[in-house]
Amino acid sequence: MDSINRRELLKLGSAGSLAALAAGAPGIARAAEMESAHPAVPKWEMFELTLQGPSTGDPFVDVELSATFAMDHRSVLLDGFYDGAGNYKVRFMPDAEGEWSYTTSSEHAELNGKTGSFACVAALPGAHGPVSVRNTHHFAYADGTAFFPFGTTCYAWIHQSEELQREMLETLRGAPFNKIRMCLFPKSYEYNHNEPALYPFERSAAGENDFARPNPAFYAHLEQCIAELRALGIEADLILFHPYDRWGYATMPAEADDRYLRYVLARLSAYRNIWWSLANEFDLMKAKSVQDFDRFFHIVEQRDAVGHLRSVHYSRVMYDYGHTWVTHASLQSHDFDSAPAWLAEWRKPVVYDEVMYEGNLNARWGNLTGEEMARRVWLGVIAGCYVTHGETYIDPNEPFDENATPAIWWSHGGTLKGTSPPRIAFLRKLVEETAGAAGTVEPRAGLEAAAAPYYLNASAVDAAGVATQAILYYFDFHQPIYYEFPLPDGNYSAEMIDPWEMTVTALPGTFAGKTKMKLTGTPFQALRFRRVS
Amino acid sequence: MDSINRRELLKLGSAGSLAALAAGAPGIARAAEMESAHPAVPKWEMFELTLQGPSTGDPFVDVELSATFAMDHRSVLLDGFYDGAGNYKVRFMPDAEGEWSYTTSSEHAELNGKTGSFACVAALPGAHGPVSVRNTHHFAYADGTAFFPFGTTCYAWIHQSEELQREMLETLRGAPFNKIRMCLFPKSYEYNHNEPALYPFERSAAGENDFARPNPAFYAHLEQCIAELRALGIEADLILFHPYDRWGYATMPAEADDRYLRYVLARLSAYRNIWWSLANEFDLMKAKSVQDFDRFFHIVEQRDAVGHLRSVHYSRVMYDYGHTWVTHASLQSHDFDSAPAWLAEWRKPVVYDEVMYEGNLNARWGNLTGEEMARRVWLGVIAGCYVTHGETYIDPNEPFDENATPAIWWSHGGTLKGTSPPRIAFLRKLVEETAGAAGTVEPRAGLEAAAAPYYLNASAVDAAGVATQAILYYFDFHQPIYYEFPLPDGNYSAEMIDPWEMTVTALPGTFAGKTKMKLTGTPFQALRFRRVS
Repeated sequence: MDSINRRELLKLGSAGSLAALAAGAPGIARAAEMESAHPAVPKWEMFELTLQGPSTGDPFVDVELSATFAMDHRSVLLDGFYDGAGNYKVRFMPDAEGEWSYTTSSEHAELNGKTGSFACVAALPGAHGPVSVRNTHHFAYADGTAFFPFGTTCYAWIHQSEELQREMLETLRGAPFNKIRMCLFPKSYEYNHNEPALYPFERSAAGENDFARPNPAFYAHLEQCIAELRALGIEADLILFHPYDRWGYATMPAEADDRYLRYVLARLSAYRNIWWSLANEFDLMKAKSVQDFDRFFHIVEQRDAVGHLRSVHYSRVMYDYGHTWVTHASLQSHDFDSAPAWLAEWRKPVVYDEVMYEGNLNARWGNLTGEEMARRVWLGVIAGCYVTHGETYIDPNEPFDENATPAIWWSHGGTLKGTSPPRIAFLRKLVEETAGAAGTVEPRAGLEAAAAPYYLNASAVDAAGVATQAILYYFDFHQPIYYEFPLPDGNYSAEMIDPWEMTVTALPGTFAGKTKMKLTGTPFQALRFRRVS
Repeated sequence: MDSINRRELLKLGSAGSLAALAAGAPGIARAAEMESAHPAVPKWEMFELTLQGPSTGDPFVDVELSATFAMDHRSVLLDGFYDGAGNYKVRFMPDAEGEWSYTTSSEHAELNGKTGSFACVAALPGAHGPVSVRNTHHFAYADGTAFFPFGTTCYAWIHQSEELQREMLETLRGAPFNKIRMCLFPKSYEYNHNEPALYPFERSAAGENDFARPNPAFYAHLEQCIAELRALGIEADLILFHPYDRWGYATMPAEADDRYLRYVLARLSAYRNIWWSLANEFDLMKAKSVQDFDRFFHIVEQRDAVGHLRSVHYSRVMYDYGHTWVTHASLQSHDFDSAPAWLAEWRKPVVYDEVMYEGNLNARWGNLTGEEMARRVWLGVIAGCYVTHGETYIDPNEPFDENATPAIWWSHGGTLKGTSPPRIAFLRKLVEETAGAAGTVEPRAGLEAAAAPYYLNASAVDAAGVATQAILYYFDFHQPIYYEFPLPDGNYSAEMIDPWEMTVTALPGTFAGKTKMKLTGTPFQALRFRRVS
C-alpha cells in the first residue's frame, strides 16, 4: 500500500460519493478478479478470496465459511464473511515470504473445498507490518522498526460528510500523529448529534435494526478509511463499542455483540494498521458487565489471526490491564505519578489515551491550554509511557449552542486549530532520534524513566531494558538556575531544548561524570545528553 | 498580648543581644514578680508561677514539680519545669474567666504545697485563643472565629543571626502568612550549615551533649520567638524532631527523647499559638520507629493541658493520620486528586504542609515557579484543604556553592523574593470573605469541594457541613469560553477573578439556576458566586 502514491489515495478518498468509496479498498489482491490464478502478494498486504454463494435466506447468519492458509509447517485458520450480493470473502495478511496455499471449508458446496495458492513476496517499501508489543513497555512493527505512538483522537470522523473526511485526511498528512482513536459505531454525544450516512446494520425507515444483517456498504467505507490511514502510516485504534449511542448499538443482546465482533474480525484483521480498542469508557456501558468485556477479549484473541494489539479504555473504573489477554494499558488518566507502579505491575506498555483535550469547551475534559496538552505528552514520555492528543476548539464567536457547532477535531476531524500539535511533532522527532531512529531495524527500544524522581529524566534503553546512550531531561514547572547531572559512564554531548519554542541548542564541549551546569532559570525546559565516546 | 504595640515587640525582638532576648518573654503574668498576690490574667494569656528550689545536683531530672489549677468543678494538673539558677516554674493558660486557684506538689518541701489564686479576666482585644479543629475539616480559634491556615516555612529561623531574625519578623508583618513551620532543633542540611548561637542542651566545648540538662537560655529565646509570632497573629507550627542533624538530637536515647518532650510541653503549652508537629520527615529518622512517634503523640496528648493541634510530617511513608491522637493531616504531597478520599477517610482537616517551594534551587523540591506555587495553594483550597507556602530563591549571580549562600526564606527567613506571596494574600482574603469573615464568632466553617469534579469549585459550608451562600470556582489550566454553572437555590451575584492579576470584577445583574456565562477563554481564572437573595 505504501507504494501507492498518497495523493492517489486521497483522490480515491475524495471520489464523488460514498457509494464510490464503498466500492472497495485499494491495494487488495483479489483472487476472483485477478488475471493470474497465482498472484504475488507483498508481505503484510492483503490477499482476498471471493467466492459466490447463496444470497437468499439469512446468509450472514446461516452460511459459515472458513479457510486454512498454509505454508510449510504453518497453517492459519480464518473466518470468511458475507459481503452481500452473493459474495463471500476470506481475507489474509501473509506475514512471511514464500508459497502459501489455501483450502476453504463450508457446509455449502459452492463455498467448500476451494483451493488455490499465491506467492508472498517482499514487503513494499515503507511497509513494516503490524505493530505489537516489544521490549516490555514499548512497541515495534513486525520488521523490528520501533513504533513510538503519538496518537490523536477523532472519534466519529468516518461518520461525517465526505468533505470533512477529506479535510481530515489532508490535515493528517501534515500532522505529527501516527495513531488515531476512532469509533466504528456512530456517536451520539455533546456536539455530535448528526445522523451517519451509513449504518453498521440494516435499519428500517422506522429505525429498527437488524443486528443479524451487517451493512456491507458501511464496512466498505470503513475499510476505505482504514486503508487511507494505512497509506499515511497511521495506526487505526478502532473502538468496537462505546456508550454514546441512540441507535441501539450499545445495548445489543450478547449473541448480536459476539456475531458483530466475529464479523468485524473476519473483515478487518487483515489490515495491518489495526489496533483493537474493545471500548471507549467501557464502564459507562450500563448494559454490559466486565465479564462481557472479558468475553469480547477472548473472541478477539481467538478470531484475529494477526494478533493485533488489544486494549480497552475506561471512564472511572479501570479494566484490569494485568489480564494476559490485554496487550497494553489504554488509560483515561493524567496521573503520571502512578506510571512507575503501573509499568512495574503490568509489565506492558502504558498508553495514556485520554489526558483531556486542548480546547475551549465548557467541559473540563475539553478545555486544556495547548501548553498543558503538550506538557502532558512530555510528562508521559518522560515517565516511559505514551500519550494521545485530542483537540476540542469551538469558535469563540459562535453561539454557545452545541447543536450549531462546526467541526471539532476530537469528534468530527476537519482541521487542527491548537498550538500543541507542532510541539508534539517536535517531541516525536526528539524521541525518535533519542530512543531509536525510525526506519531502522532493531533500534533501541524506547525511553524508560529514571527510578526516582521518575519524571525528571528518561533514558533510551536497549531490548534488555538497559539504559544506553541518550538521556532526555524535562524540567516541567521547575526552574532551577543550575543542576548537577549524574551522567553515567562515557562522554556526552549536551543540548538545551525549549519544548515550546521548539529549539535545540547544542552546548560546546563534552560532559562526563557529575556535571554541574547553569540553566535558564525558566520553567518547562528540557535537556538532552547523548554519548559521544 | 495583642494589645501590646507590635512595634514594641519588634523592638524587644531587636534588643542588642541574644542574652537580652533570653531574659524573658513579654506578656507573662509572673506570680513571683507581681506586686499583687492576686493578679488579673486575661483569658488565653499566660500565668507563670516561679518558685525557688534546689540548684545543685541534677535539678532537671531529680526534682519533680506539678501544680493543680482549679476553678469551680474544673481542675488541671500541670507539670512544672526547672529554668536554671534555682528557678522552678509552672505555666498555665487560663481558658475561662473567673477565679482560679492553684496548689503545687513536689517531694521537695520548698516547692510543695504552695498555693495562690488569680482572676482570669476578659481576653485582650484580638486574642481569640488557641486554634483547634472545628467542623470536621476546618479550624477555628477557641472563641469560634474561623482560622484558615495560610502557612509558610522557615525551618531554622530561630537559629540564624539576630539581624536575620529581625528581618524575618519585619517581613512577616507585611506577608499573608498566619502559620509558620519551624524547627526547635537546629538544622544541618543543604544551604544551612551554620552553627546555632544557642543549643537546646548543655554542650561541652568538645561537642558532648548533656541530654539531662536543657539550656534555659535556648528556651527563653525560643519563647521570645513564639511570643513575637503570637503578637503578629501567627501560629507557630513547632517541629519537635527532624532528621537534619549533626549534633545528636535526632539520635537521642528514648529516655532523653521523652524527657525532652515533657520539658518542652511544660514550658511551651501555655503559649496559645503553638501547634505541635512531632517531626519533619519522620520517616527519614532512621534511629526512630513509627512506634516511637506513636509514643511521642501519647506524651503530648497527656502533658499538654491546652490540647494544642498535633500532627507529624513525612517524606515518603505517610504516618497513619487516622489515629485518634492526630488532630489533622500534615502532608508532604501535591496530590490534590486524593484529597476527597483523605478527607472522607480521616474526617479531619488536611493541610498540605509541603507542596515543594517557589524558587530556583537545583533540587526539584525547591524550584517551582511562583505561578505553580500559587496554583497549588488554589488547588488545595478548592479541594477543601489548606496549603503551606515555602520559598527557596538563591541569587542567580551567586556562585553555585551551597556553603556560600545568602539567606533562603525556607531555612533562614530574611526577606521574600518570590511572586506567589501577594497572590496567596489575595486568595486568603477571598477565602476569608467567602467562607467566613475573620473576626466574627461562629462563622461559616470553611470551603468544601464539590463532589465531582472536585477541584473545579468549592462551596462555603456551615457547621453542619451544609453548603450555604458562596461558591468559588477555579479553572486551573482549563480555558473554557463559556460554562454552565448549576447554581443552587437563590439569586447570586457573580465576580470574575483573575488570581494572578489579583483583580475582582463584579458582573452586572444577578444569576439563578443553570447559568450559562461567557468566560475569558484563558486559563487560571476564577469566579465567585455569592447569594444575594
